[in-house]
Amino acid sequence: MKNFTFYCPTQVEFGRDGVDRVGALTAAFGGRKVLVHYGGGSAVRSGLLDRVCRSLEQSGIAYVTLGGVKPNPRLSLIREGIALGRQEGVDFLLAVGGGSVIDSAKAIAYGLAMEGDVWDLYSKKAEAKACLPLGSVLTIAAAGSETSNSSVITNDGTGEKRGYNNDICRCRFAVMDPTLTYTLPAYQTASGCTDIMMHMLERYFHPGGTLSMAADGMTEALLRSMLVCSRKVLEQPEDYDTRAEIMWTGSLAHNDLLQCGNGMRGDWACHQLEHEMGGFYDVAHGAGLAAVWPAWARYVVDTDPARFASFARKVMGVTETEDKAAALAGIAAFEDHLRSLGMPVTVTELLGRRLEEQEILDLAHGCSFQGTRTIGTLRVLDEADIAEVYRRAL
Amino acid sequence: MKNFTFYCPTQVEFGRDGVDRVGALTAAFGGRKVLVHYGGGSAVRSGLLDRVCRSLEQSGIAYVTLGGVKPNPRLSLIREGIALGRQEGVDFLLAVGGGSVIDSAKAIAYGLAMEGDVWDLYSKKAEAKACLPLGSVLTIAAAGSETSNSSVITNDGTGEKRGYNNDICRCRFAVMDPTLTYTLPAYQTASGCTDIMMHMLERYFHPGGTLSMAADGMTEALLRSMLVCSRKVLEQPEDYDTRAEIMWTGSLAHNDLLQCGNGMRGDWACHQLEHEMGGFYDVAHGAGLAAVWPAWARYVVDTDPARFASFARKVMGVTETEDKAAALAGIAAFEDHLRSLGMPVTVTELLGRRLEEQEILDLAHGCSFQGTRTIGTLRVLDEADIAEVYRRAL
Repeated sequence: MKNFTFYCPTQVEFGRDGVDRVGALTAAFGGRKVLVHYGGGSAVRSGLLDRVCRSLEQSGIAYVTLGGVKPNPRLSLIREGIALGRQEGVDFLLAVGGGSVIDSAKAIAYGLAMEGDVWDLYSKKAEAKACLPLGSVLTIAAAGSETSNSSVITNDGTGEKRGYNNDICRCRFAVMDPTLTYTLPAYQTASGCTDIMMHMLERYFHPGGTLSMAADGMTEALLRSMLVCSRKVLEQPEDYDTRAEIMWTGSLAHNDLLQCGNGMRGDWACHQLEHEMGGFYDVAHGAGLAAVWPAWARYVVDTDPARFASFARKVMGVTETEDKAAALAGIAAFEDHLRSLGMPVTVTELLGRRLEEQEILDLAHGCSFQGTRTIGTLRVLDEADIAEVYRRAL
Repeated sequence: MKNFTFYCPTQVEFGRDGVDRVGALTAAFGGRKVLVHYGGGSAVRSGLLDRVCRSLEQSGIAYVTLGGVKPNPRLSLIREGIALGRQEGVDFLLAVGGGSVIDSAKAIAYGLAMEGDVWDLYSKKAEAKACLPLGSVLTIAAAGSETSNSSVITNDGTGEKRGYNNDICRCRFAVMDPTLTYTLPAYQTASGCTDIMMHMLERYFHPGGTLSMAADGMTEALLRSMLVCSRKVLEQPEDYDTRAEIMWTGSLAHNDLLQCGNGMRGDWACHQLEHEMGGFYDVAHGAGLAAVWPAWARYVVDTDPARFASFARKVMGVTETEDKAAALAGIAAFEDHLRSLGMPVTVTELLGRRLEEQEILDLAHGCSFQGTRTIGTLRVLDEADIAEVYRRAL
């Protein structure tokens, strides 16, 4: 087991009606002037935003609001949020929404605590030294941003989608009420479930095989549970326990618990492949991951067939005894599962058209930062490999 | 899934040589004047205490030391620590040792932050409103106190052993270096492994069956891993990965992660049965748990044979299809496992003599707080039940 630091100080308030404790929680964590950040109209229409604001008022907490966050949250809105926060003397960020809203709020929180340009963090030109405290009210089970140390934003000037990880941005509290996810459309629910499973797979497949018995066992158990729940939620979208399992697993999948022992490194190639497409084509994150995973898995399987076989047997129930055959059966079984959720399993299905070769080369060029970086750790992929994975994913 | 709050803000520093970061960690969490609390001579003889003090000095942190903590930590020493801390203006507790030392430090930290008598917390006459911040350097994998919200102390005036749980006592940081546990005697190692497994079993068996798919699956995976590692560590006491799995699982087993979803209630009858014996006969905690568990399990199995069958099949590998038969086979298999670790599986084996009937009645009277409380939740046990479990455990 490799050395690790694990620090996830988020207070999780899980269950029905946690929303009404937002004011008290914000006060407990020192918020006095809050920027309430949210997405489109659903938080308004459902009355959730009103409920959050009422709770803040009842705790005597002043606030301003900024809505309009879209999937793949835009740098331009983040800059607007930073300007608003400065002008209003905001000392606490409250995200009401899914991963995009929380990630956008994290970027604003970084921006309000630094002097330079917040994009410098995401373009890896600077490291954050501070971050305003944040809380969140989660409405989509997917990104795990409510307890993770990561955020991913898109520079709408350049089309670049980039992530930045730092423990200082972890939410002080996360209100997680599964009933808030009842009304999500099926495609978005399935995309969220895929994202959750992919957060586990990205960590499970990494150089060196076993994470640790603890992390491997917990990951396999949570993946098995997600196979059941992701299917069931599409049939019974208002089944509380199923929504609850998915929402809680979404946090566990991405708060780093499941990579303690592997040097805190996963593979993450699929996330990079998806980010590049997400920045350009604005696809649902989970769906984008589903579209590249099967091609990625078959491209890299020979690097560690035993690990893929382990996934196949312990998660997908494959009984095949020979490793390579088991590995391929496991990949096919997971691909079938994604398809059964209505997810695209190729880029062509994702975009509704076949990419031209030049588009593939452009994606690979962007994904490799113009040929200056590799992606992946299980198998390291350079620009040519990246292009080949996109090609095989058509 | 029932509502829950999960808040475990301990920064885990896991791996070799974390001890040398103690000073920096203490400074980062605001410690300026530290009470370094430890147990017997082994921390001194091994040079660990010197290393901790050097690290504090290098970070410019003043400290006083107080050793002498024994298993089943004494209220008298805790009172001494509170007096010393007051006199020296201590603002941070640093526990260097196992669960007893950390629990003793937690009690001192409570005591230094309150006006009344600290025993009032443990005798349930008062609730803690504050607690001095703590850090720990763990030397025994067992109690999980390094990330838990609990502490258990013994009133050496009355022989009462009592626990108190509150999130405010969770350590700010925990330095966990598996190599520090290499030299533990086999009996203590086995007792620690038993304690870790029992922390999971106490939560796994509770009214209502399934915790949640997530918690059940993680618990079963970690129990399976502990079955392997608890055996292996006795054969290879200096195998790093095995010690590491045990140490990390010890934290996960008791930081409440594994009871999220069940209303944060476990059964805990075996802990109460053991506490009563521990207060009077000063037995190793894990060994005391091993001595009562088989009798407890057989006494309560009919309350939920399906749950015991689930444990039998998913953890102990029992293939029996009928629930009650599977349940009994699982109990026997776990009893065999404990025996294979050199643990006593009866109270007679634990104490080396057969208790007199009057001693059993006295234990039951004490454990039931003179007949004023019941213990257990899966099956609620009154004073007569408690006596009967002790009797069957002979």
